[in-house]
Amino acid sequence: MVIVEASRLREVVTSVLECEGATTDDATTQAELLVEGDLRGHHSHGVRRLSVLVGRLRNGLVRSGEGPVHRWRTDAVLDVDGRSGFGPVVARSAIDAITERARTAGVAVATVRNANHIGMLAPYVEQIAGTGQIGIALTTSEALVHPWGGARPMIGTNPIGIGVPTSGSPLVLDMSTAAVSMGKVLDHAAQARPLPLGWAVDGSGAPTADAQAATRGAVSPFGGPKGYALGLALEVLVATLTGSALGTRVRGTLDIEYECTKGDVFVALSVERLGLVHMLPAVDRYLDEVRGSDSDPHIRIDVPGDRARRTRADRLRSGIPLPPDVWAGVLALKEARSV
Amino acid sequence: MVIVEASRLREVVTSVLECEGATTDDATTQAELLVEGDLRGHHSHGVRRLSVLVGRLRNGLVRSGEGPVHRWRTDAVLDVDGRSGFGPVVARSAIDAITERARTAGVAVATVRNANHIGMLAPYVEQIAGTGQIGIALTTSEALVHPWGGARPMIGTNPIGIGVPTSGSPLVLDMSTAAVSMGKVLDHAAQARPLPLGWAVDGSGAPTADAQAATRGAVSPFGGPKGYALGLALEVLVATLTGSALGTRVRGTLDIEYECTKGDVFVALSVERLGLVHMLPAVDRYLDEVRGSDSDPHIRIDVPGDRARRTRADRLRSGIPLPPDVWAGVLALKEARSV
Repeated sequence: MVIVEASRLREVVTSVLECEGATTDDATTQAELLVEGDLRGHHSHGVRRLSVLVGRLRNGLVRSGEGPVHRWRTDAVLDVDGRSGFGPVVARSAIDAITERARTAGVAVATVRNANHIGMLAPYVEQIAGTGQIGIALTTSEALVHPWGGARPMIGTNPIGIGVPTSGSPLVLDMSTAAVSMGKVLDHAAQARPLPLGWAVDGSGAPTADAQAATRGAVSPFGGPKGYALGLALEVLVATLTGSALGTRVRGTLDIEYECTKGDVFVALSVERLGLVHMLPAVDRYLDEVRGSDSDPHIRIDVPGDRARRTRADRLRSGIPLPPDVWAGVLALKEARSV
Repeated sequence: MVIVEASRLREVVTSVLECEGATTDDATTQAELLVEGDLRGHHSHGVRRLSVLVGRLRNGLVRSGEGPVHRWRTDAVLDVDGRSGFGPVVARSAIDAITERARTAGVAVATVRNANHIGMLAPYVEQIAGTGQIGIALTTSEALVHPWGGARPMIGTNPIGIGVPTSGSPLVLDMSTAAVSMGKVLDHAAQARPLPLGWAVDGSGAPTADAQAATRGAVSPFGGPKGYALGLALEVLVATLTGSALGTRVRGTLDIEYECTKGDVFVALSVERLGLVHMLPAVDRYLDEVRGSDSDPHIRIDVPGDRARRTRADRLRSGIPLPPDVWAGVLALKEARSV
């Protein structure tokens, strides 16, 4: 592993995006979100995605500087046309608008279409929780997951993010409804390592430990039929609300060929406006009860968000360990434009 | 099994509740919801719960006829004080109010406290979807589930319900975040049958096949650490929004001793008001693609709601198979008051 400081990584990634035509503001926001992935230990959403973004910028599939168009459908529901902007830029602007609106309306919802990949959901629900509001974030993605009983990828890895403020650190849930990312399956295939059963099925729908066979099948939902049902419900919920694509028609978060056709939904609920501020210390106490609910001092019980928070603090202090090829890839993208 | 017609079962249950002091309207609504559990094959939420309701009526913990108090916190967020009413009665009234409001506001949210157990979530999201709106239903329950890594029950079985209208039948998700109901664990214990590993842990936190040992431990979340994280996030989300209890302080859905301290949240989003009616046929087509995504004609792929819909139609036609002791229990409650 190469150790790279977060500030250095942000700087290099920002500079690459700027050289590819992104505005300084857009490049800074997108770089910040990619580096957040690596800071939290979620490298699949980190700077290894930079090359796809560069390819999409070059192909005109990510357009910088135009800015999203906001249109309030009702007092509490915001329609956002991302106009092919960077996902994080469009998402941040949508969240700014709904957290402001929720201060008076109690609740506000943003439905986002025509925006690029937003990466992890945690930073967005943290943004909402940071204003003292409850946040929910949903997004669709390319079909990689099979229906329960099926063999073909028909459903996105559709993650769910929930942020709840407390009197201390917020609870931050950010989980995919897939058992594992396709990136991990591909890593195992490249290294000829067997897959744990339950991660994926082969082309006939049978659970497989053969990573190569899995690439011809599909990733499994987490938690069996329940995870399938949840992922499918989120697919349909998000697509309906955003007027975006469904199933195999979702494209553009992994490739450099297609317009991005997924949708994002953000919800903000103002604890203050709803008269519920007194609940925040109770939630904090409860989460501490959960953390302390095992008498064995060797067992650590985390609540959602704890582990990412620890990893992030550690990496801000000691630097981010990156696989050498990932760091080399980032530097190569920088060199390519500096010549 | 004893075969009982749904109409007969509704009539007997309504009559028991009326004899125990419920108004005809309240008794009819509560009976309808209990029988829906049995009609859909979810007996744990069916008429076997009648004796607890009777006990709660007798102890003054369910109060009929007073009606919930609705107070709009904002234009789109309704606070509902259930005043110890029947869960389904309070929930139905909350949903009537938010689906009416969502017609103009696009979105409306009800937060419900001081109401009794609402049973399955499916009928509520179906009620919302039946108005052409997207529905979400969340509720907390007694702590039965252990944190990931822990051994003690600290989290409710916190289910999630999502209903999305289509141009045909709605998608209806209704799933608990527990691997299994405590009722099933108790059934296995009574019959001295081993539990599948993954359902529960013993008092030391180790996965166990011993149902007796599981009753001294806790039910496991579905899907491992992800299901744990989701269930805990829903616990905190619902409690904060409704100002209700958390963890082991949630009571009154299984016992006949305590006021009910859980909370319910309902969300309605009007597809029509948000200009998204054109999406409904696309969703219908996509769900049919998912159902037909396996080439093997012997494999049936369901989408959420399909199986319950089939079971319900079958039982409306042919009657509901009830365990003899459950039917005898219902009749005994009827006899007890007729004497």
